[in-house]
Amino acid sequence: MQQLRRDPIIGRWIIVRYDDIKTPQDYYSEAVQKKQAGKNCPFCVGNEDITPPEIFVDRTPGSGPNEAGWNLRVIANKFPALRVEGDLEREGIDIYDQMNGIGAHEVIIETPVHEKDIPDLSLTEASKIILAYKQRCIDLKKDKRFKYILIFKNHGLSAGASLEHSHSQLIALPIVPKKIKEALRGAEKYYGFKERCVYCDIMHQELQEKDRLVAQNEKFIAFSPFFSCAPFEIWIMPKDHKSNFCDIQEDAIDDLTAILKDMLSRLKKVLTDPPFNFIINTAPIQNDQDLNYYHWHIQILPKLTKSAGFEWGTGFYINPSPPEQAAKFLREIH
Amino acid sequence: MQQLRRDPIIGRWIIVRYDDIKTPQDYYSEAVQKKQAGKNCPFCVGNEDITPPEIFVDRTPGSGPNEAGWNLRVIANKFPALRVEGDLEREGIDIYDQMNGIGAHEVIIETPVHEKDIPDLSLTEASKIILAYKQRCIDLKKDKRFKYILIFKNHGLSAGASLEHSHSQLIALPIVPKKIKEALRGAEKYYGFKERCVYCDIMHQELQEKDRLVAQNEKFIAFSPFFSCAPFEIWIMPKDHKSNFCDIQEDAIDDLTAILKDMLSRLKKVLTDPPFNFIINTAPIQNDQDLNYYHWHIQILPKLTKSAGFEWGTGFYINPSPPEQAAKFLREIH
Repeated sequence: MQQLRRDPIIGRWIIVRYDDIKTPQDYYSEAVQKKQAGKNCPFCVGNEDITPPEIFVDRTPGSGPNEAGWNLRVIANKFPALRVEGDLEREGIDIYDQMNGIGAHEVIIETPVHEKDIPDLSLTEASKIILAYKQRCIDLKKDKRFKYILIFKNHGLSAGASLEHSHSQLIALPIVPKKIKEALRGAEKYYGFKERCVYCDIMHQELQEKDRLVAQNEKFIAFSPFFSCAPFEIWIMPKDHKSNFCDIQEDAIDDLTAILKDMLSRLKKVLTDPPFNFIINTAPIQNDQDLNYYHWHIQILPKLTKSAGFEWGTGFYINPSPPEQAAKFLREIH
Repeated sequence: MQQLRRDPIIGRWIIVRYDDIKTPQDYYSEAVQKKQAGKNCPFCVGNEDITPPEIFVDRTPGSGPNEAGWNLRVIANKFPALRVEGDLEREGIDIYDQMNGIGAHEVIIETPVHEKDIPDLSLTEASKIILAYKQRCIDLKKDKRFKYILIFKNHGLSAGASLEHSHSQLIALPIVPKKIKEALRGAEKYYGFKERCVYCDIMHQELQEKDRLVAQNEKFIAFSPFFSCAPFEIWIMPKDHKSNFCDIQEDAIDDLTAILKDMLSRLKKVLTDPPFNFIINTAPIQNDQDLNYYHWHIQILPKLTKSAGFEWGTGFYINPSPPEQAAKFLREIH
């Protein structure tokens, strides 16, 4: 029997297929091809002159800007989805609305070494990534044209990564994205009724039930959501109620780095280096003060199934790997 | 400069890329592989005994059920996303909700000939597909457990078609899908303010502006939406305001068949047989009476780009083929 499960935040249903359960070995063909250092990779050391200049950098003392000696670089995306120059100039054309594609689109080059992914980095190296996210957010939210900062990573060609050298991206948007608006609306409704944060409630239930829990440390929890829309989906959430990723404190950065690296390592082992996306879901810039009803979290989405007419037509998802079983695979790997 | 465009129905923004415009030749690699008749195809004539029995059929007089002699067959999906037997048994588990995966999942085998697609069928043959959709809707909406009937087609492996023999699918759902709820809510809001149907307003603007219009006949219009989320997306809409596909009259079936076959033929020529999904968006079953604010329509979505972290994180889409240019390519092909 299939099961329909409801997302308590946005009210979306997903279908968990119990008649044709897919385990990790069913997804082996999706593995990302092993990386080979290419001379033509613009993100490799020595090729700094073919990328836009550094916006933010972590460097070994003594090295100069835009030359070798860096550990992590943030640069403007050479082919940005939105451009930073100009004004929005929103206008109506009868029934329609349009505006200029204003925004910032940056690339975080996570390591100088072409062959390394986040699981291969040391905790110190990996923590520089989280720190870079935070620093760029602090800087970009000063720009009054921006309403939301999206941080995400695409890993593997089928997850949308056009370059294999490990990197993530940041897009500052002049509008609050639809998905975030939906989550805010749902979470606010829940708070209005229960006077509790829906994400905190989810976390407490996961810590109690334990069958979808993957790991935890002092400050963070990682679990397979009851309503996972993708097989082997993982959420990482701070245990303390916080709505803005950008406000993360130094001690929490270490715990976040540890659990994120751990989850990506487990996924890499269980699913043989699957393509994936991860997204930091956080409150809009205008909500500078902590919101009592929203809770920032990282969503890791392995790309193992295809969306087709059903998903397009309904906005629902079919998940052939029950989250309880996915969590068990992820928990038991070492 | 990129452009942000707003969907006036659901309020979602899309990004049109003007700095790196993709024309049909940029998508050639996506072409669906040419079909080869396979002995093992369960949808081919002669293999009726390996599929579930016919629910609905169009047969040459003299032939018997579940044997050769059919022109179109509707069967239960052998691997259904939802099953028709049982009760919903909705229950709460603390914060979560679940219910049994009850629904109907049927397959419409559109032609007995393995190598043919909708563009290769005669108008009479193709009209049997629309008629089958209608007949199955009339039958299924009698089942009080169902709230919505989704009809869709996946063409090509990357658009989710696991079998290449031309077919579409129908899923009767025990809940109204999220996407339909969003569209209903947005359209009702618009109606509340303007006292006009937003879809009718879109159609009138497209008929007037003409640069996104692809074709029209007496009863239907086909155009590239201003807010296309996919490159070369096409909407087909009845000129008369109707909220339920299921109420389509016989004379409109001919016009719908003609324009649908025409659009799929144009896409096949312009984009060299691209993978695509099409979906019939219609009012929920409970809205048996015509809704003044909703308007049924077919959405054709070629699968030419990948969704990645940005789309997952925002719910926005990036379209590298401006709809006005896509419409021009589609209009000018013959």
